[in-house]
Amino acid sequence: MTSRVYNFGAGPAMLPTSVLEKFQKELFDFEGMGVSVMEISHRTPQFEAMQEQAVALFRKLAQLPDDFEVLFMHGGAQMQFSAIPLNLMGRTPSSKALFVETGVFSQHAIKEAKKYGEVEIVASSADSGFDHIPTLLADAFDPEAGYVHITSNNTIVGTCWPEYPDTGEVPLVVDATSDILSKPMDFSKMGVMFASLQKNLGPPGMAMVAIRKDLLSYARPDTPKLLDYALTAKNKSLTNTTNTFAVYMVKLVLEWLEEQGGVSAIAEANQKKANCLYEVIDASSFYHSKVRIEHRSVLNVPFQFPNDDLKALFLKEALENQLYALKGHRVVGGARASIYNAMPLEGVEALASFMREFERTHG
Amino acid sequence: MTSRVYNFGAGPAMLPTSVLEKFQKELFDFEGMGVSVMEISHRTPQFEAMQEQAVALFRKLAQLPDDFEVLFMHGGAQMQFSAIPLNLMGRTPSSKALFVETGVFSQHAIKEAKKYGEVEIVASSADSGFDHIPTLLADAFDPEAGYVHITSNNTIVGTCWPEYPDTGEVPLVVDATSDILSKPMDFSKMGVMFASLQKNLGPPGMAMVAIRKDLLSYARPDTPKLLDYALTAKNKSLTNTTNTFAVYMVKLVLEWLEEQGGVSAIAEANQKKANCLYEVIDASSFYHSKVRIEHRSVLNVPFQFPNDDLKALFLKEALENQLYALKGHRVVGGARASIYNAMPLEGVEALASFMREFERTHG
Repeated sequence: MTSRVYNFGAGPAMLPTSVLEKFQKELFDFEGMGVSVMEISHRTPQFEAMQEQAVALFRKLAQLPDDFEVLFMHGGAQMQFSAIPLNLMGRTPSSKALFVETGVFSQHAIKEAKKYGEVEIVASSADSGFDHIPTLLADAFDPEAGYVHITSNNTIVGTCWPEYPDTGEVPLVVDATSDILSKPMDFSKMGVMFASLQKNLGPPGMAMVAIRKDLLSYARPDTPKLLDYALTAKNKSLTNTTNTFAVYMVKLVLEWLEEQGGVSAIAEANQKKANCLYEVIDASSFYHSKVRIEHRSVLNVPFQFPNDDLKALFLKEALENQLYALKGHRVVGGARASIYNAMPLEGVEALASFMREFERTHG
Repeated sequence: MTSRVYNFGAGPAMLPTSVLEKFQKELFDFEGMGVSVMEISHRTPQFEAMQEQAVALFRKLAQLPDDFEVLFMHGGAQMQFSAIPLNLMGRTPSSKALFVETGVFSQHAIKEAKKYGEVEIVASSADSGFDHIPTLLADAFDPEAGYVHITSNNTIVGTCWPEYPDTGEVPLVVDATSDILSKPMDFSKMGVMFASLQKNLGPPGMAMVAIRKDLLSYARPDTPKLLDYALTAKNKSLTNTTNTFAVYMVKLVLEWLEEQGGVSAIAEANQKKANCLYEVIDASSFYHSKVRIEHRSVLNVPFQFPNDDLKALFLKEALENQLYALKGHRVVGGARASIYNAMPLEGVEALASFMREFERTHG
């Protein structure tokens, strides 16, 4: 067992130690081939079989309906901010996309979508610093729109949707970058789910996409070929050389997740971890949270300090206690604990103890 | 020292053993941070410093002129097949790009460029199965065109340009995926060079781009943001979360290349390796090459057999002798030895001996 710091980074985030250990052990010999997974062709039967295992395991863990395709695509979630409008804005004659604005990443997605058509922001919590998920009226979604985009968990401010909205006939596109497989996901409400790998799935540099098959074929003719969903599905994510290493890491992470008892078990563990920190914050007159209680993220727990000097001291002493990467995003300041699937309960308990002790001595 | 097979795969290709060993050793502790390079933010000073070192080392090894930017971009060379026309076709009012057709990958690039404007194939060796690099007349390049695209080394058939063509006022774009840093590169003749990492630079999934600064700002307004050269240069390749792991591997490979004596030394070693195999082929009445001698690739050496049974037996026995991934591409058949920078002379000598012995017993 390797000695490790507790890494609370928002992403690229910590990977399960046993996954890194397995990779380290197999580094020079993937599947008995005598070479590293980074050194083999993506056209070898061994690689193709491994990728199929990863996809099958994702399907099983996510309880993905059969009418969805699973794709691995280059470039993380922000490449999908381009791919989504390129593929879906042409679904209806309106060339219009709907967005719920809940944070910096939905703003990035909105800015990118405007290159390809009309954008309508159906609801926003920008006026209150994104401290909650806005309420949506039943008639919010223009049925002529190509799709509705939401960010299911907002890493910077630390909010999440308690459940996905009902968008009627308009396909719901969910940026699930930070909460994919952290809890059961209701695909019956979704048209497309995408997530970069680097929080709950693997290393940075790729995205996983799950898309309902009837939405595959609306790409603009000038869509870059590696961003075309139908082509990617047809070629089983191997239109060109894929990131063999990242796909392999995803497979190891999914196997690890299955060993943990799957998505329901990890959801319970994640809730327990979050409660552990929110209890410290709620019981404290020293720390405070800016987020509405009913929309608090289970995976990103930002908290504020009485002043910046205490924050700086907290971060310094935390690092000395092997509690790594707790600095908050510059947009909200303070500290932030990102506690995705791979963060063990012991890490969160260590942080909670440290927070209590820090309050006791400095509060 | 780890025991390894000799991996002649065309790409993803073998990495230097010492690079994999160094990575394996540092897997749990990048720069004394107590976490893996896959688990840190791309915004940390440690990552940014490391990426800057990689870029500086590339500049030094490639003798890159100061008026070029170096970019890391998601998705390999085929993502550049979209990025190049998106960024450069609008350089002139003609919206036209010129191509020299020398193999399957130039054909892929041509097909993609047609999405974004007019394509003119100024020369082609398709009629003779791409067995040579076509001759170009001095007036081949329409000065109104946005750029000229060539593939400097063609991995499938095994040809390379003896030197880059003089394209006058039209910027030359070189797909150097398979020969980047394998020999001195004359950037004074180039406007843009791009290469996926997976042959001479690192693991698959990214590309490195070197672009003359005056060519940065011609992107179409609807260019996906992560394919926009000017934005990528402005953000130092960190517009979104980068593939931290791949950048780190590039740095290790470049350090290794410097230890080998740099580009001139590796070019000499590569020529010696190629000669070793071509001598066996030329001295043989059993093996033969389809490629014109003056355009033979130094890095990919395909060779043919008297019949398919002997080829199959050769590949089977080669594998038993730890000579891995020698099967030729389906387009040309036969066998192919890809002998990029990381392939040691001993590996090539082992293959040459095996070839002679196989001919002696089966010829």
